Amino acid sequence: MSKYAEIISIGDEILYGQTLDTNSHWISGRLDEIGIKVRRKITIGDEREEILNTLKESTERADIILVTGGLGPTRDDLTKPLLAEYFGVGLKMNDEAFEHIRTIFEKRGREVTELNRMQAELPENCIKIDNKLGTAPGMWFEENGTVYVSMPGVPYEMEGMMNDIILPKLKEKFTGGVIYHKIVKTVGIGESALAEKIVDWEDHLPKSIKLAYLPTFGQVKLRLTALGDDRAHLEKEVGKEVEKLIPQIASYVYGYDNDELEKVVGDILLKNNKSIAFAESCTGGYISHLMTKVPGSSQYYKGSIVSYDYDVKVNSLDVDRKVMEEKGAVSEEVVLQMARSVRSKLGADVGISVSGIAGPGGGTEEKPVGTVWIGYSDEQKTVAKKFNFSKDRNVNIKLSALCALNMLRINFLRN
Amino acid sequence: MSKYAEIISIGDEILYGQTLDTNSHWISGRLDEIGIKVRRKITIGDEREEILNTLKESTERADIILVTGGLGPTRDDLTKPLLAEYFGVGLKMNDEAFEHIRTIFEKRGREVTELNRMQAELPENCIKIDNKLGTAPGMWFEENGTVYVSMPGVPYEMEGMMNDIILPKLKEKFTGGVIYHKIVKTVGIGESALAEKIVDWEDHLPKSIKLAYLPTFGQVKLRLTALGDDRAHLEKEVGKEVEKLIPQIASYVYGYDNDELEKVVGDILLKNNKSIAFAESCTGGYISHLMTKVPGSSQYYKGSIVSYDYDVKVNSLDVDRKVMEEKGAVSEEVVLQMARSVRSKLGADVGISVSGIAGPGGGTEEKPVGTVWIGYSDEQKTVAKKFNFSKDRNVNIKLSALCALNMLRINFLRN
Repeated sequence: MSKYAEIISIGDEILYGQTLDTNSHWISGRLDEIGIKVRRKITIGDEREEILNTLKESTERADIILVTGGLGPTRDDLTKPLLAEYFGVGLKMNDEAFEHIRTIFEKRGREVTELNRMQAELPENCIKIDNKLGTAPGMWFEENGTVYVSMPGVPYEMEGMMNDIILPKLKEKFTGGVIYHKIVKTVGIGESALAEKIVDWEDHLPKSIKLAYLPTFGQVKLRLTALGDDRAHLEKEVGKEVEKLIPQIASYVYGYDNDELEKVVGDILLKNNKSIAFAESCTGGYISHLMTKVPGSSQYYKGSIVSYDYDVKVNSLDVDRKVMEEKGAVSEEVVLQMARSVRSKLGADVGISVSGIAGPGGGTEEKPVGTVWIGYSDEQKTVAKKFNFSKDRNVNIKLSALCALNMLRINFLRN
Repeated sequence: MSKYAEIISIGDEILYGQTLDTNSHWISGRLDEIGIKVRRKITIGDEREEILNTLKESTERADIILVTGGLGPTRDDLTKPLLAEYFGVGLKMNDEAFEHIRTIFEKRGREVTELNRMQAELPENCIKIDNKLGTAPGMWFEENGTVYVSMPGVPYEMEGMMNDIILPKLKEKFTGGVIYHKIVKTVGIGESALAEKIVDWEDHLPKSIKLAYLPTFGQVKLRLTALGDDRAHLEKEVGKEVEKLIPQIASYVYGYDNDELEKVVGDILLKNNKSIAFAESCTGGYISHLMTKVPGSSQYYKGSIVSYDYDVKVNSLDVDRKVMEEKGAVSEEVVLQMARSVRSKLGADVGISVSGIAGPGGGTEEKPVGTVWIGYSDEQKTVAKKFNFSKDRNVNIKLSALCALNMLRINFLRN
């Protein structure tokens, strides 16, 4: 029997739209990995009635209830006393939790305040969950076969507790059915064009496998999901379908599951023993950031020159001032020079350059906001391509970076 | 009477932790601006029973129910037929919606598929909401005084509909009470240290004003909230309290409400007529990205050299190879040279440099992962500061960027 979880995020700041709730997203992903299905996610404010009602409602639907938020030292934090009220128990000082708080403050050379001392008080019926990264302990409750877990809202504290204690404990306690997903990640094709290309394949999918189209920023992910008891069997069944799918859309597929384009591109460089350098203008360092987010990227990434200023393009990237005056900084000629130049200056095998009009200012009739040139240079060739994106600065920066990375990927496909 | 809204996000991908729901966050913020309070946010899967039950439950609590997701052209999208079922009506072809879809496809030089044609069918009792940016129309329903709105899950399509039609319509229909927030943004101090500094002020806050501490990545936001009928009055009352607060924590406060540190720092540069350049190592372009996200940043931002490679530090930033061999690339001497050099090479008034061990590899006993040096150079002085962050690569990159921007801010405070 598959077990259901619900996630309750508590905090007025989430309802006001001031804080983006990334916790429930992270928790969902981790529960999915251990085969626990999230049935519902609920966000409520720091209000007594809402918190008590939601606990009651979730108890009727779910076997596991995970609560984040409202455990801070300040007065707007209500979760702990309300959990005690919900279970009809009192609060009691936990010496171990207090000692942990005292140690943290000692290290910082400070006295424990009354507010922090109160963080060591816990409902009598809970098991304390250590918080290595902060002062507020987590709590584990069990009542009538339902598990309730309360965690701080600070993401890294919550994640530490989940990884170290809660996930292993849930895995041990609930050995439910298996959910198996396979995600096929594509770039460079829209949702319905993709759907049309694979309509026959979709029509012949076995009923036991569910297909979803997940369009995100310039990409479409295809998710195949199967439910059952035997992971190896599900993996094999889904694998067979993926094998039939791929030949129909091969050049668009850059990876699977948690693959990120920047990591895929990095791996291609590593495998081909090639290094890379970027000359960025309108992307302002964003492509470099994506590449260097990847651990180990120093093996293939040399560096970048971000040339926002006209003079930086001339002095640091040897762009011909006359060409720039004639053709403009956003032109085929300029990105070709930038790509060639950054490659030789930074001693890389491949150079990629981007120059465009991110907006909101700077557009003209001939070159409206969203006009972007991307250049590619290696020892054999130097080429450039023009793109027309959107009116939105942020969208233009992100799509430029995506297309630059995809251009790199496609050039290696063809080599 | 204040009106309550609930937001229902539909999509298995959100429950599986594959897609982060940014829609409900964005909607919350916009509703807050027009004085509509969000009571609850709920995420459910593409499942018949869950969708019908949630519509029923939300109807009991809220006056406005906003639904996103499940309107795509593919078979996993269930929202529209279930809304028709919920209201007990049929689906009917909407000629205007079909014409819109046909035009979009014509522009792309493609035939309308059967899947897309079906997107033009709408429940008989709804008012169509135009979708300028995509094929799926939105829907507006009213029943027994409750408003239901259904929108696509693609963020920019949803945002377009909200801005153009839904928000103005909600504002006109529900002229509720006013919620007034003032957010004071601090950097460089922890939550409980901040709470201790302002404990007296907090004790004397009028009961009508609610205070919340919102800790995020290296920052703490203080939110003051007041409810009432007269916005000008609330603004004045809250303003009085903020005026008393600021002198106690002045050097930590970098802004208010939607101010972003990178924008604040940019404005400081603009006001002082100073330009900036960065020499980034472990941050890999992230600081440059933050600075250039801001529209108009070309007025003060010259460019950056991202020197990941040893040779790039020597060749492009004139770092002394001998000094680097003796002291290491992560050292006071090297960031001082980098800051000075990038300033002169890129012709900027101020140079900021960062070199550190982001991890997971590269740490030593003397310089563990998380060790970061940040340099600052202007015409008067060149200084550097050492930081010890975390074991996590991503956290180290982001905290390094935050501290580099804050170092820039503080240097201008002192000038």
